[in-house]
Amino acid sequence: MAAENTLSTIDRRDLDFQLFEVLEVQRLAARPHFADHDRETLAAALDTAQAIAAAHFQTHNRKNDLHEPSFDGNRVTIIPEVRAALDKFIEAGFMAAHRPYDEGGQQLPWSLLQGCFACFNAANVASTAYPFLTIGAANLIGSFGNADQKTRYMAPMLTGRFFGTMCLSEPQAGSGLADIRTRATPLPDGNYRIQGSKMWISGGEHDLSENIVHLVLAKIDGAPAGVRGISLFTVPKFRVNDDGSLGARNDVQLAGLNHKMGFRGTTNTLLSFGENGDCIGQLIGTPHRGLEYMFMMMNEARIGVGLGATSLGIAGYRYSLDYARQRLQGRAPDNKDPASPPLPIIQHADIRRLLLAQKAAVEGALALCLYAAYLVDIEHTAASPEEKQQATLLLDMLTPMVKSWPSEFCLEANKHAIQVLGGYGYTRDYPVEQYYRDNRLNPIHEGTHGVQGMDLLGRKVLMQNGAGLALLLNTIRADIAAARDLVPLAGHAETLEAALQKLEQTTRAMAPAAKDGRIALYLANATLYLDMMGHVVIAWMWLRQARIAALALAAGADAGAGAAGSEADFYQGKLAACRYFYAYELGKLDYWLPLLARLEPATLEMQPAWF
Amino acid sequence: MAAENTLSTIDRRDLDFQLFEVLEVQRLAARPHFADHDRETLAAALDTAQAIAAAHFQTHNRKNDLHEPSFDGNRVTIIPEVRAALDKFIEAGFMAAHRPYDEGGQQLPWSLLQGCFACFNAANVASTAYPFLTIGAANLIGSFGNADQKTRYMAPMLTGRFFGTMCLSEPQAGSGLADIRTRATPLPDGNYRIQGSKMWISGGEHDLSENIVHLVLAKIDGAPAGVRGISLFTVPKFRVNDDGSLGARNDVQLAGLNHKMGFRGTTNTLLSFGENGDCIGQLIGTPHRGLEYMFMMMNEARIGVGLGATSLGIAGYRYSLDYARQRLQGRAPDNKDPASPPLPIIQHADIRRLLLAQKAAVEGALALCLYAAYLVDIEHTAASPEEKQQATLLLDMLTPMVKSWPSEFCLEANKHAIQVLGGYGYTRDYPVEQYYRDNRLNPIHEGTHGVQGMDLLGRKVLMQNGAGLALLLNTIRADIAAARDLVPLAGHAETLEAALQKLEQTTRAMAPAAKDGRIALYLANATLYLDMMGHVVIAWMWLRQARIAALALAAGADAGAGAAGSEADFYQGKLAACRYFYAYELGKLDYWLPLLARLEPATLEMQPAWF
Repeated sequence: MAAENTLSTIDRRDLDFQLFEVLEVQRLAARPHFADHDRETLAAALDTAQAIAAAHFQTHNRKNDLHEPSFDGNRVTIIPEVRAALDKFIEAGFMAAHRPYDEGGQQLPWSLLQGCFACFNAANVASTAYPFLTIGAANLIGSFGNADQKTRYMAPMLTGRFFGTMCLSEPQAGSGLADIRTRATPLPDGNYRIQGSKMWISGGEHDLSENIVHLVLAKIDGAPAGVRGISLFTVPKFRVNDDGSLGARNDVQLAGLNHKMGFRGTTNTLLSFGENGDCIGQLIGTPHRGLEYMFMMMNEARIGVGLGATSLGIAGYRYSLDYARQRLQGRAPDNKDPASPPLPIIQHADIRRLLLAQKAAVEGALALCLYAAYLVDIEHTAASPEEKQQATLLLDMLTPMVKSWPSEFCLEANKHAIQVLGGYGYTRDYPVEQYYRDNRLNPIHEGTHGVQGMDLLGRKVLMQNGAGLALLLNTIRADIAAARDLVPLAGHAETLEAALQKLEQTTRAMAPAAKDGRIALYLANATLYLDMMGHVVIAWMWLRQARIAALALAAGADAGAGAAGSEADFYQGKLAACRYFYAYELGKLDYWLPLLARLEPATLEMQPAWF
Repeated sequence: MAAENTLSTIDRRDLDFQLFEVLEVQRLAARPHFADHDRETLAAALDTAQAIAAAHFQTHNRKNDLHEPSFDGNRVTIIPEVRAALDKFIEAGFMAAHRPYDEGGQQLPWSLLQGCFACFNAANVASTAYPFLTIGAANLIGSFGNADQKTRYMAPMLTGRFFGTMCLSEPQAGSGLADIRTRATPLPDGNYRIQGSKMWISGGEHDLSENIVHLVLAKIDGAPAGVRGISLFTVPKFRVNDDGSLGARNDVQLAGLNHKMGFRGTTNTLLSFGENGDCIGQLIGTPHRGLEYMFMMMNEARIGVGLGATSLGIAGYRYSLDYARQRLQGRAPDNKDPASPPLPIIQHADIRRLLLAQKAAVEGALALCLYAAYLVDIEHTAASPEEKQQATLLLDMLTPMVKSWPSEFCLEANKHAIQVLGGYGYTRDYPVEQYYRDNRLNPIHEGTHGVQGMDLLGRKVLMQNGAGLALLLNTIRADIAAARDLVPLAGHAETLEAALQKLEQTTRAMAPAAKDGRIALYLANATLYLDMMGHVVIAWMWLRQARIAALALAAGADAGAGAAGSEADFYQGKLAACRYFYAYELGKLDYWLPLLARLEPATLEMQPAWF
């Protein structure tokens, strides 16, 4: 009962396809920062991640769910497999892999590291959350912290001695950061006294590491109201002496563990800062710019959430695919002979639909997350200010979809995985129900689905007078142009171009409301705009994948060799999934676009008393 | 932590609206069978159900989830609250309420009983499953069993001494009943020796009742292959002596409990029949007609599943609505003053959308389930063969949507309820995550979502040369005609008529494939056809509700009294939810219909090797 899933949870062939054939990350080696890498070294990192994920993460994914962290009022107990897996992760150098050599890193491209994280997440998303958070916190200190904070906190995070957290939400203020109440009072020595409660803090307490470095949003006494008065602080669980050894316990207390429906293996906490008046923090950067710093790291954090959602989708897809190949049940609709043997259910059209829907969602989402991560690499190693500015703009534009589309539609994919298994899928003897429970978190944290919609339509579409949207559309059009001449893709290229034109018309039709004081109406359907834009972006990702597949098949056909057997099947699968997405998913624009264009007011006009 | 939800889980005002204003079930009293009932007696039954549900079912809904039934190899242990609640249910006479007086029943309309079941299901779907299954099994014996089976098994089920189960699936044959392997060997005394395994049997073992009567599908030795060789048997856990006392244990063994992601409070079992060669069963009706009997009761069972899904949707909607009224967070998009107080989140358009989506789904689904149950009442008390035939035909036609639409879209509603609560919704401290887990079962059991699609498009649409579909469309058109003259509904009436015409065109465009040997292609998108038809049917249900609401508001306005205050709000809410459904949901037909009309072959043409 409830055995661990021993099937490989990641499709390495697809990871290689996405990274080395579609994105061609090996070309990053042309940039000085990545000059020591080539396809071989990059693939070796994936090999290591895949092996550790399979041997140490996947093996306790279910156990972690069944035996979630517990708190006896004194200490948090976590099954020992988590620490053992994280030790392997740290030993292999993944905590610092993307950091510069002089920090002990390997200068691994962020996109490649995301490929590694796909392996870890697909194997065990809950245990992977600890290093994910730590790397995010370390990057933030690396970008905005002072030399002391880098030495005292970041360096031991990169070696895995310390872990990190992000402390934004409060019990009374989830998405509404303007209303956080945590206070920071300046002390004579330049430090701050921190006081307040933080909610939903993942990794907020555990004994997996020597120390935990909390990055805490708080308002300095007398700060302006709202988001412009928020500052950011490093708040360690144990104070750190100048020689790097641990000092006294800081006044950060675990007030309670949250017991979630999934992601159970990650401690999720309510933390009390300064209950005894003795919580000391250090300001990061300058006062009142905390949210700005957070947002500057947000793109990377949100890629991580999208990738986590995608990885759960992949794991569910692979399990249900394997099941569908083996499970015998039913006959073809035109076979009336009950004595004929039952078919593997993968032969049934509706099961194939459920599998294709998953494949199209998870491989489309993976392409998007890796594309966004690749933009991070370009941004960080740009040869010119123009290149950097373009990468940043495109990434800013894409981030709401990168975070939200996988969260929504790979959750749907996990729903389909359960459906393929039927009653078995609904039991805890099979892994797919856990993926579904785990994945339900992703549309909520790191900015809810609704918040992403507001960010896209209220900020990103409007920014720089529409330059972000224009850049996105131009970028898509370049790929349409590249695909148009390939016979199997001409139709898709045309369909996508038509979709872009309708998207432009719709956005233009909505625009006046943003400027003439009807901002609430303009934003009323922001979530639908987000889903619509996400579908367009994923259609683009499929066109990019299909182009590479078509070229590979053509090359094989031309030479009478090359792509053949299972390789040809792999590329045919890419063409078929692209076709599915255009036939079954892109058509949803015909539902979204008219509703958006007419600025449908039904939800705005609904009165609370009428519910 | 994980406290019971103490908020009322059912909207009694809406139940009264649906039953007494829209369906006007009190008019059933004009039929001799229901002559003793009037609105008062019917409302009294609802009062009783609501009170027992609140006091005895809702109070252990979470506890049942946290402490699921366990099996020590010897006996199954269930928390005592379940038995206590069911005792109240039985004492109040609900087990036999719909049966004739001469069986100890109250001749309560089936539609009204479903209203009662909505109360029980919304309070605790897992505990309600036991009487739900028992009533279904008793009805089956009542319809097809012989006098001995009625006395020996049905009578004690109606008094709650015995409970019942339905044993269809087997480990190797879930949806594929043609391949069941359970055997029945005739014995000289007219009984049968049963041998085989049955999977996913809810209520298959427990000590909540003196005895359990399993209704088992099995093949008599030498029976034809496939579904035409299946017979139905009563197989008691304990044999029953002629005087009604319990005899020896029959050879039915619990082989294991299934541990599900939700619905945890209902034992779900793998049962072994005749492992020691001593399992005795009695044939129901004549040999080889077992599946036919099952299918004749299927409409009622599937209404029950749809209603269960709906009830979970209602409970989640009500909880998230209450939360949205109280939770303060964020400001209006045009309010730039961070010092202004945060708003109740119900003021935000996207939260209102999530609430309206739930309201439209759960109240639309409730209307459909009760409408179908009302057809059962008409069918059973028809004054003429024509009336009966029409009711049966319409019910047969509607059943796939009655089962599937709530299962799919009230699950989606539960997803929205979690989203309204954000991180809180994702924790087990709040009830909505359990509703979501519980509801995930409904698209799987009693015929999967895919099976319902095949049933609708492959059987119901084609039956009697399209007479079922024609009757459905005519019935809808009668309600369109009745709504057309009401000013607030004229637009909706027109929209629905246009949808019907497109539905007809699409169905006609698909029809040739069903006849010219392309049956696999015809059925390839059956699930999408099902969802599409479901949306049309729910739009119809909303037009019916809106008509009553518009009339009530008009009457109040005319008379300068009547509907006012909260009553007017209630009716305005109906109009607003109807408007939401037409604006946000019916537009999805523009996505489904073209795909269906062109007989999209992408899933059929996908090759298994390409995945």
